[in-house]
Amino acid sequence: MINKKMYELGAKRSEIRELFEYGLRRKAEIGAENVFDFSLGNPSVPAPDSVTEGLQKLVSEVSPETLHAYTSAAGDVTVRAAIADYINKNEGTDYGAESLYMTMGAAAALTASLTALVGEGEEVIVLAPYFPEYKVFIERTGAIVREVPSDNLTFQPDIDAIKATLNEKTAAIIINSPNNPTGTVITEESVIALAEALKDAEDRYSKPIYIIADEPYRELVYGGVKVPFLPKYYRDTVVCYSYSKSLSLPGERIGYVLVPPTVSDSGSVYLAIAGAGRALGFVCAPSMLQRLIPFCLGDTSDISVYDRNRRLLLEELTSYGFTLVKPDGAFYLFMKTPCPSAKEFAEVAKKFELLLVPSDSFGCGGYVRISYCVTTEQIERALPAFKRLAEEYGLGRGK
Amino acid sequence: MINKKMYELGAKRSEIRELFEYGLRRKAEIGAENVFDFSLGNPSVPAPDSVTEGLQKLVSEVSPETLHAYTSAAGDVTVRAAIADYINKNEGTDYGAESLYMTMGAAAALTASLTALVGEGEEVIVLAPYFPEYKVFIERTGAIVREVPSDNLTFQPDIDAIKATLNEKTAAIIINSPNNPTGTVITEESVIALAEALKDAEDRYSKPIYIIADEPYRELVYGGVKVPFLPKYYRDTVVCYSYSKSLSLPGERIGYVLVPPTVSDSGSVYLAIAGAGRALGFVCAPSMLQRLIPFCLGDTSDISVYDRNRRLLLEELTSYGFTLVKPDGAFYLFMKTPCPSAKEFAEVAKKFELLLVPSDSFGCGGYVRISYCVTTEQIERALPAFKRLAEEYGLGRGK
Repeated sequence: MINKKMYELGAKRSEIRELFEYGLRRKAEIGAENVFDFSLGNPSVPAPDSVTEGLQKLVSEVSPETLHAYTSAAGDVTVRAAIADYINKNEGTDYGAESLYMTMGAAAALTASLTALVGEGEEVIVLAPYFPEYKVFIERTGAIVREVPSDNLTFQPDIDAIKATLNEKTAAIIINSPNNPTGTVITEESVIALAEALKDAEDRYSKPIYIIADEPYRELVYGGVKVPFLPKYYRDTVVCYSYSKSLSLPGERIGYVLVPPTVSDSGSVYLAIAGAGRALGFVCAPSMLQRLIPFCLGDTSDISVYDRNRRLLLEELTSYGFTLVKPDGAFYLFMKTPCPSAKEFAEVAKKFELLLVPSDSFGCGGYVRISYCVTTEQIERALPAFKRLAEEYGLGRGK
Repeated sequence: MINKKMYELGAKRSEIRELFEYGLRRKAEIGAENVFDFSLGNPSVPAPDSVTEGLQKLVSEVSPETLHAYTSAAGDVTVRAAIADYINKNEGTDYGAESLYMTMGAAAALTASLTALVGEGEEVIVLAPYFPEYKVFIERTGAIVREVPSDNLTFQPDIDAIKATLNEKTAAIIINSPNNPTGTVITEESVIALAEALKDAEDRYSKPIYIIADEPYRELVYGGVKVPFLPKYYRDTVVCYSYSKSLSLPGERIGYVLVPPTVSDSGSVYLAIAGAGRALGFVCAPSMLQRLIPFCLGDTSDISVYDRNRRLLLEELTSYGFTLVKPDGAFYLFMKTPCPSAKEFAEVAKKFELLLVPSDSFGCGGYVRISYCVTTEQIERALPAFKRLAEEYGLGRGK
């Protein structure tokens, strides 16, 4: 019998994907240059040269039977050692290859970690607004999603609300900083308070409660902001990382789970994640992509483009009368809608050919997400449409 | 809390992997040339030139922001259309891109199909001897594995035993032809009888019972043998394919699920598989690898090497007094052990530096699997060791 839940997940695409597909149809109708698609987090800035040069070198210099061979299930050990060294250099840690498990991007890192660490009927806390696939990943394990709204001015975690939600069934909390969809970086102050709350709960319920840190946007920060490295503040942290955004490789699926040796019973946690990867059918992360990573450690795509887009949009949209929280990272702006229904606002925006994602699917109302990982030129062409959208709602009249 | 089952899967590597790791240690001790490793199905024949040339072309001619971009979750539509055309040309079918869902190899194809089509407490039939990970994949869905031994002379399916096992809880049967570990290709006669038995059961229980065909070895056949294309014989067949073996790309993880339009309610089956892929964290199959496939359709690695290895081993081992079934496909020989315990025999073989996988983990006793996807030179050097192993058991004395 067809699994109903899986059928529904396949039949009902995410709202983000729906909007993207609408955009494709609309572009075919009126020309790509006339549709302002801010729906997807698909980086527009090309991968750094080290990616293309590294791939060329691998393909021309490594024999195919080595380049394309199975690696160990956890990943090639020299690749893992190189990544560990890179983390150590940046964070002053002392990790080895044995703390890293290579995955097909952050999504696979999350499903392996959740499958390993969360049991049926247990609870996983997510901080709204959050990436909608978390719900899909958590519910597939049989666990229960507990949404905790973030502070709606700063989008920092609401520590009191988290404390009130922690209970003996809490298995983990997913932390995503820089955040999709708000671009917020959780401050060190918030991290310290969060770590304290979690430690208290661990003591109270005599069991580990894991932070599962989803960090594909770690390097995408602006204005010198630092992203606190969570394992330093809270021992039971596993980090799910992806090179999708930092190296503009979203389709290639390469990332890792980091299980620091400080995690309670870290050896068993690591093995359970490896076991989960095996049961989910991962076998090993794509071998050529694994071998590419040492060529690119420390590189990113040219994120000055995203920074320019961010500043341009922030300044202009604010001047039109919209309300936005200044994001420190990722490539998303979260804009307050001038009417209560984000869905209605996003529909109205479509009349101006602006594709904005209503916030409802992120677990909160009253906002739209604007993905600014597009060309600056697209933003410049879209500004008059944003202005007319503001006028439609009577914004900015007093100015 | 750590998931116990996942921990065990991570902590207890497959016996095949254990033996492979033993081989690595032993090679370090006595020199790689003195260890005869027949443990892994890691192709030794390099990928065909079209793989290397295709990759070079993609990396140098396609812009990185296109090459590495997300594809649709089901896979790039032009790639899927090209694969459908290739299947149509070979099998006289009329499939379109919408019947194909690109995956990270056959393992991911299997876990997505099982998650979509098999419910908790339902039963999945596997025909022993079988690839041990089937058990891991099936049990992760909460379903029950029902092993049905194959005919132990020919390794063809035992249709009567399958009939006796089919019941109202049967959701699917996994068919793997050419087979790992025996190399057997299921004959057309067996396929027809199997299809009849399954159709009867579908009618009796008024529900679909799926064949999940695991076909990574489809192109690896010798002596002009034809592998029957199962969807032609039984409508409720989904095919899980991988390019790992045919193109010698085991580490790269690229394959697909084919859901023919003849499958009952095929649109819903397809969507459930897509939903399962989403819930398991697959996002999309590696984009560059997807785009490589149209360069290589119809190509294989030079399988004449495997055929030479197969004939050499078969002839020599038979002449030493061992008993083997002549395999028509894949790159495995299944050799009867001259003592009841396959494990004991494999341990004795180690004394001669021969690494052979005991059959117990494939769900049957009394055999070892010999992976002959190695160099012919390794086989030639190993023959004296096989001869001494035969002598150890007093074989071939009469000759």
